[in-house]
Amino acid sequence: MMEKRDELDGPVLYHLDDSCGLEDVEEGHAYSGYVNGTADYGVFVSLNDSVSGLIHESNLASSLEVGEDTKVRVEEIRDDGNLSLTPVHMHDYEEVYIGEDGGEDGGEERRTPIGEVVEGDDVVLEGEALSVRQTSGPTVFTVADGTGTVDCAAFVGAGERAYPEAEDGDAVRVTGEVETRNGELQVETDELEVLEGEDEGEVRDRLSEALDDRAEPPELEPLVDSEILHDLYPRLRRLAFGVRRAVLKDRPVVVRHHADADGMASGVAVERAVFSLLDEVADDPEAQYHRFNRMPSRAPFYEMEDVTRDLNYALKDVERHGHPKPIVLMLDNGSTGEDGDAYRTLDAYDIPVYVVDHHSPDDEIEPLVEEHVNPYLEDGDYSITSGMLCVELARLIEPSVEDELLHVPAVAGKGDYSEASEMDKYVELAREHGYGEEHVEDIADALDYESYQLKYDDGRHLINHILDVEENEAHDELVPHLKTLAEEAFEKQMDSARRHVDDVSTPNGATLCTLDVEKYTHKFTFPGPGKTTGRIHDEKVDEHDGNVVTVGHGPDFCVIRAEGVGINIPEIVDELQDEVDGAGVDGGGHLVVGSINFVQGKREEVLEALYTKIAQAPLKEE
Amino acid sequence: MMEKRDELDGPVLYHLDDSCGLEDVEEGHAYSGYVNGTADYGVFVSLNDSVSGLIHESNLASSLEVGEDTKVRVEEIRDDGNLSLTPVHMHDYEEVYIGEDGGEDGGEERRTPIGEVVEGDDVVLEGEALSVRQTSGPTVFTVADGTGTVDCAAFVGAGERAYPEAEDGDAVRVTGEVETRNGELQVETDELEVLEGEDEGEVRDRLSEALDDRAEPPELEPLVDSEILHDLYPRLRRLAFGVRRAVLKDRPVVVRHHADADGMASGVAVERAVFSLLDEVADDPEAQYHRFNRMPSRAPFYEMEDVTRDLNYALKDVERHGHPKPIVLMLDNGSTGEDGDAYRTLDAYDIPVYVVDHHSPDDEIEPLVEEHVNPYLEDGDYSITSGMLCVELARLIEPSVEDELLHVPAVAGKGDYSEASEMDKYVELAREHGYGEEHVEDIADALDYESYQLKYDDGRHLINHILDVEENEAHDELVPHLKTLAEEAFEKQMDSARRHVDDVSTPNGATLCTLDVEKYTHKFTFPGPGKTTGRIHDEKVDEHDGNVVTVGHGPDFCVIRAEGVGINIPEIVDELQDEVDGAGVDGGGHLVVGSINFVQGKREEVLEALYTKIAQAPLKEE
Amino acid sequence: MMEKRDELDGPVLYHLDDSCGLEDVEEGHAYSGYVNGTADYGVFVSLNDSVSGLIHESNLASSLEVGEDTKVRVEEIRDDGNLSLTPVHMHDYEEVYIGEDGGEDGGEERRTPIGEVVEGDDVVLEGEALSVRQTSGPTVFTVADGTGTVDCAAFVGAGERAYPEAEDGDAVRVTGEVETRNGELQVETDELEVLEGEDEGEVRDRLSEALDDRAEPPELEPLVDSEILHDLYPRLRRLAFGVRRAVLKDRPVVVRHHADADGMASGVAVERAVFSLLDEVADDPEAQYHRFNRMPSRAPFYEMEDVTRDLNYALKDVERHGHPKPIVLMLDNGSTGEDGDAYRTLDAYDIPVYVVDHHSPDDEIEPLVEEHVNPYLEDGDYSITSGMLCVELARLIEPSVEDELLHVPAVAGKGDYSEASEMDKYVELAREHGYGEEHVEDIADALDYESYQLKYDDGRHLINHILDVEENEAHDELVPHLKTLAEEAFEKQMDSARRHVDDVSTPNGATLCTLDVEKYTHKFTFPGPGKTTGRIHDEKVDEHDGNVVTVGHGPDFCVIRAEGVGINIPEIVDELQDEVDGAGVDGGGHLVVGSINFVQGKREEVLEALYTKIAQAPLKEE
Repeated sequence: MMEKRDELDGPVLYHLDDSCGLEDVEEGHAYSGYVNGTADYGVFVSLNDSVSGLIHESNLASSLEVGEDTKVRVEEIRDDGNLSLTPVHMHDYEEVYIGEDGGEDGGEERRTPIGEVVEGDDVVLEGEALSVRQTSGPTVFTVADGTGTVDCAAFVGAGERAYPEAEDGDAVRVTGEVETRNGELQVETDELEVLEGEDEGEVRDRLSEALDDRAEPPELEPLVDSEILHDLYPRLRRLAFGVRRAVLKDRPVVVRHHADADGMASGVAVERAVFSLLDEVADDPEAQYHRFNRMPSRAPFYEMEDVTRDLNYALKDVERHGHPKPIVLMLDNGSTGEDGDAYRTLDAYDIPVYVVDHHSPDDEIEPLVEEHVNPYLEDGDYSITSGMLCVELARLIEPSVEDELLHVPAVAGKGDYSEASEMDKYVELAREHGYGEEHVEDIADALDYESYQLKYDDGRHLINHILDVEENEAHDELVPHLKTLAEEAFEKQMDSARRHVDDVSTPNGATLCTLDVEKYTHKFTFPGPGKTTGRIHDEKVDEHDGNVVTVGHGPDFCVIRAEGVGINIPEIVDELQDEVDGAGVDGGGHLVVGSINFVQGKREEVLEALYTKIAQAPLKEE
Repeated sequence: MMEKRDELDGPVLYHLDDSCGLEDVEEGHAYSGYVNGTADYGVFVSLNDSVSGLIHESNLASSLEVGEDTKVRVEEIRDDGNLSLTPVHMHDYEEVYIGEDGGEDGGEERRTPIGEVVEGDDVVLEGEALSVRQTSGPTVFTVADGTGTVDCAAFVGAGERAYPEAEDGDAVRVTGEVETRNGELQVETDELEVLEGEDEGEVRDRLSEALDDRAEPPELEPLVDSEILHDLYPRLRRLAFGVRRAVLKDRPVVVRHHADADGMASGVAVERAVFSLLDEVADDPEAQYHRFNRMPSRAPFYEMEDVTRDLNYALKDVERHGHPKPIVLMLDNGSTGEDGDAYRTLDAYDIPVYVVDHHSPDDEIEPLVEEHVNPYLEDGDYSITSGMLCVELARLIEPSVEDELLHVPAVAGKGDYSEASEMDKYVELAREHGYGEEHVEDIADALDYESYQLKYDDGRHLINHILDVEENEAHDELVPHLKTLAEEAFEKQMDSARRHVDDVSTPNGATLCTLDVEKYTHKFTFPGPGKTTGRIHDEKVDEHDGNVVTVGHGPDFCVIRAEGVGINIPEIVDELQDEVDGAGVDGGGHLVVGSINFVQGKREEVLEALYTKIAQAPLKEE
Repeated sequence: MMEKRDELDGPVLYHLDDSCGLEDVEEGHAYSGYVNGTADYGVFVSLNDSVSGLIHESNLASSLEVGEDTKVRVEEIRDDGNLSLTPVHMHDYEEVYIGEDGGEDGGEERRTPIGEVVEGDDVVLEGEALSVRQTSGPTVFTVADGTGTVDCAAFVGAGERAYPEAEDGDAVRVTGEVETRNGELQVETDELEVLEGEDEGEVRDRLSEALDDRAEPPELEPLVDSEILHDLYPRLRRLAFGVRRAVLKDRPVVVRHHADADGMASGVAVERAVFSLLDEVADDPEAQYHRFNRMPSRAPFYEMEDVTRDLNYALKDVERHGHPKPIVLMLDNGSTGEDGDAYRTLDAYDIPVYVVDHHSPDDEIEPLVEEHVNPYLEDGDYSITSGMLCVELARLIEPSVEDELLHVPAVAGKGDYSEASEMDKYVELAREHGYGEEHVEDIADALDYESYQLKYDDGRHLINHILDVEENEAHDELVPHLKTLAEEAFEKQMDSARRHVDDVSTPNGATLCTLDVEKYTHKFTFPGPGKTTGRIHDEKVDEHDGNVVTVGHGPDFCVIRAEGVGINIPEIVDELQDEVDGAGVDGGGHLVVGSINFVQGKREEVLEALYTKIAQAPLKEE
């Protein structure tokens, strides 16, 4: 199946196609490759999908960027199969294609990869016509074959449409001569043929493979040493691949994330990476407005109202602007059973969903999502926050954004009070890059406060300035100001709330603290009932030295936080549904942090039943 | 007044102007005409406003579309005045204009209808300058006279404005020679004169008449046999005429409709027809975004907030984009007295309102609306739903949309539980076109559910896919999924609501079922209090075998449904206003389906008084 | 320091730079100047920043507009230092520059002010490159130096970038010849040099001074005779200067105003002036959409949610569209301590805030705002309403809008029930211009009603038509219709509310009237609790002949109005905060008009404490 040619007279650059293996490589030969990762000690270069090696940093004269095409010489094929490479600079060389698609066999022999066309050559190109436009002179077909893109000008008369049978999206074979026009290569077309059947199939396959190659994320290690992150990395890589592939295919990316500091950090990290990738690959200079949409979700799951909105707008873009259908990313959100209805709605349109979440996941969503990254899936828990994961993801989508995001995992962790060992490392990483722990915490508080004020808007630059991922001198004044406002707002709520908390000792030796948040807090203002109850809880845990369950209740809901008491909120919800008839109980969350909804008229019964369960729950072992 | 010319040597094509009657027609002559209706047995062709005849299908070689221009020979003028026509194909013929405007009398003789200009002719055109644009060469006046539109280029110097006294909107007379430029006819202008007085009046009149001609809806029969539909057809035709005329005049069309399945079906049917017409006649390829706006209304009438919003945006478009003022269509909404305030607001701007509704109408709105189609106006009732009427209307606006809408009346009827005999026929029509009754019902349920999720958005393509008027394979998965979600949502509400319904036997032998919807249903979720009360009512009617009044009450409103008991809700509202002082009672609806609002502090008094009235209401005769 | 040249042979036009004083002026000489004010008796012309004189109207052949450049002869330097001027028409004259920057000293001598370039001249220009654009021929630099703007074309090859080191924003020196191209002067560039250091500094200074000159508001007197207005005028002038300077610098103007008749009138007056100025100075014909944004605020202060939104959108415009950062105007709003948080947020971005308000101001905001116009700052009170002040401001921003705004102060005053003596004069002014008092009042009522319906939208043209500042015949029908709707809505609320007011005689001899607005008025409809309570209060004052305090209370707020009783609401709020623990009391307002918020669960306690305070308040002296 493999073929190799005898050495030619002049210098030769070999291209390995993806069917080649190590056995097709010869020491001393020069190969075409691309950079797919960097390390302290050098740069990894892939010769095809499966064959790659290292240029040691001692051999690197200039820096190479991930994704860059390059030429290398194979100095040594080591016993362990690793290749030792050096950069090579070649001019006036011949090119030889090795593997299934290469060689000079039959009619195939004349096809020139677009990436290889040179001025003056007579070429036969095969590719997809990305667009067809009629100028006042020739008709111009923009053709891509996975190695490159080139304009092919066909002239039959001024302003007259050449090859009217060929439309954009068609697979075509173009015969012509390569010329330079306005500094760009262009093919003066002698003949253009629309391909069908097997020939078309080959064009599509080559494009798809080339796309897969380009979509491959770089080889990176997590920013901090962590077993869980290590175990989650294959998932993150697959998710990054999906995002990169979508972007390369011009598919819009819709991001939904939780509207708090961890969620915002998650969304921004991914946004920065996608924008950087779009800058590189998108033709449309406004692509970051047209091909990306990030929105905070108010609810802790993907509400039908939200998915309806997203779908509605996506379909309008499809029909009005010719956009492809989007992919959806759920960040710091999306792993619970309540998300299933939305995912099934998207599925009717074959819109894939990718989830990065650190909330306790429900098995039932697994078949509905394309990829799911969640510490719980690898024996971790919510202390590895979504923001941490999304910064790792962002690097895999586009490694160049790493520098501006190094402090973001620590901000995300502070936002969610992470006590993971990884948190300490991320805090240390932030400190190394100039963000002390207090600064990081202030950013988290400011972000949390401003998320509330923004409601449904992404707040793009404002949030970037708070998070300091987009340089602006406002950061220095903005963060302490917003942090102060947040604290004052908390103090105001706490001042009236604190006095109306009832503390009851329960038979299990714990303390049950309850507060009517409807009656004793200001409504429709920051902090809302959840955050206020959380703060009450923290104070009560201090006051009673642990073993506290706090319930903030309104007319048709309650918010629960527990410490040192082994409650299981999802289980309690199930039990209450059975025990309190006609109360319309639902809700959920984590084991010890969650909320329950019910109909207003059954509030007393539901709360009473809830309190009884809490009073009977076992204390946790220290 | 009529003049006819002697037979000429070569073949002659006669044009009848609108002043001609049957007496101006001669057997054997060829006439210009246009198709204005089709039937199984042939095609109706009009020779002018009042003279038309039939080409029998046996004489039709190729198909003719409604609106198409054609040439016909009059084979026979039958005794009953009907014309028997055959298609005629002519080349190299002379044209003769018959009637007031035709002939070769005086100065008028030289005017050439724009629709008749031929390359090389010296012409005198009279029409309205639709636009004037300055090119780097000549000044170009686009002139229309009702028979066509042509560009007239006037050159006085490169980039210099010719005839600066002539502005867009002026009536002008252009003398020049017809040339071809870029494949389009263009008049090389020798002289351009702005017309005033009588000459201007004639230009305007011809344009207005031509517009009226073009706005005339096709001659169609209802899709199903129905006396009420037959009686409503003249109203529907006049309404269609109004919409067509607005579209032809570039006036935006604003559609407000009820936010449920029947309302959505109504809105979509009209939207499809208007889009199809816009495709045909609008210059702006984005016209469907700029000249049409469909919005669901949450309230059962045109709230001041909504009309303020619509008017505000319309005025901004007028000032910023030079749009004409819109017309407003109220669908499945708009026939009650509560709409009057909004209509009067629009009236200040001379914005006409057209209503298609099947809710019981109030007389007082009649003088405020341009046209009102409502089954109650022709001895029908709400079982002829708005969606049914709007599909008929859509055909009259643009007959080509008929095919995609044939199942829509059945969907609309299912949405409103129609039990009309027409409903059976529409269901049968849907079945014939591949939509079984269950499928139709699922679509209605899905539509209802998704209307709720969309809130104030039209949901254009998403709704089209659910309703299957825009082909998309998502339909097959989307409809059952949304239907299931709707059912689950109902079940969840019913599960808590059902247990808290109080059934009381009333002295009149009926059962009064009451439910506190505020206390015993989830708020801000589908289904809302109205739909939930409806479902409770349906169950209670089954349980008690009819004779049930159900009242779902909240803090300041209640929803009422009655079966077998002769209540009259609008009357009850009037009585309660008198009887319960300071309760701020209002509301209304149909006789047996409606809602009442009151101030929260008088809830007990109002409900008590209401229950007393219900208990005294007579049972209906079976 | 000053230099003057001997008389030249031909006619000479002198230019005084800003360093010149009266001593540099000679009788009989002709000077360049500009119109900076008009009076009944003539026109004021400035020769530079500090030297100006009057052309008596008897010497005015044609009208001169404020801001217009003109040439004058100094007929007489009066003993009191005033100059008597006459218009002069000159052709073929030489120009002499007097002062520090003028003269023919050294290298400076050759610089030509752009405003003086003439076709055929060889010139040396110094200015800022506002933009650089590459044509298919030369590179074109648009250069401004404060006296004018001119395109400088530099050619090095077709489509090739000349002087690539020069970017927009750079200070440049251009040497070349002045030609005419397409009717515009253009400099054929021989040499272009980027300036640095001192040379650059001079360019910037000249531009900044020129901008300051242009930003200077005209010399005007208030529309009506008023001591307070007279005292406030310096503040208004400084504020107008800030707005004009922002507009001239292309900075967007964000206007936030109270959502009632006075606030709307304020916002519209400023909008009209800014639009008029933009029409004059902005290149972008859509500038009024891109550089101006007016929004009603629902809250009586600048909520964090609102400022977050405004800042978010401004930053998006900065990044996406390259806009400068905006300035913010608070109208009929913005003078209380509650605004401080928002102002500090803007301050992080150095976005200046200007306030025109007539609510009782808090000292703490003074350091946070750029300029504050408020009658309380000059011994006035709220009877001088914001709308009155904003019409005066509008004239100072752009005097040409005066004519259309002459009735607006009266409307604003009616909206806020002003009883100032100035109000009578404004009413009289309105009457003189065709707006009778009743008409003015109807407009205020219509505006108030429609503000409510518009919610967060500016309602641009609709409001303009109601206010009659943009001519539209709808005005005549719209205003009485909306006024009637407003009255009906009031009657409906009052009908239920009125019966549930409790009147209690208090020990201080007053009457305390209380109403549960939650229970006894319709919610979410016009008029809201504040306006309803106000109307109740007015009725009760009539009924009890003064000495009434009215409190409309809801679950977590109350609205207070007092007449004849000396309460101090801000003080009461402070006391309640101390006295009622955990009630979360805040709020405020004026002395006798305000509102208080509290947590729902402490409602009874707060109200009871409030009523006690009211009962003990002293009666006011008549």
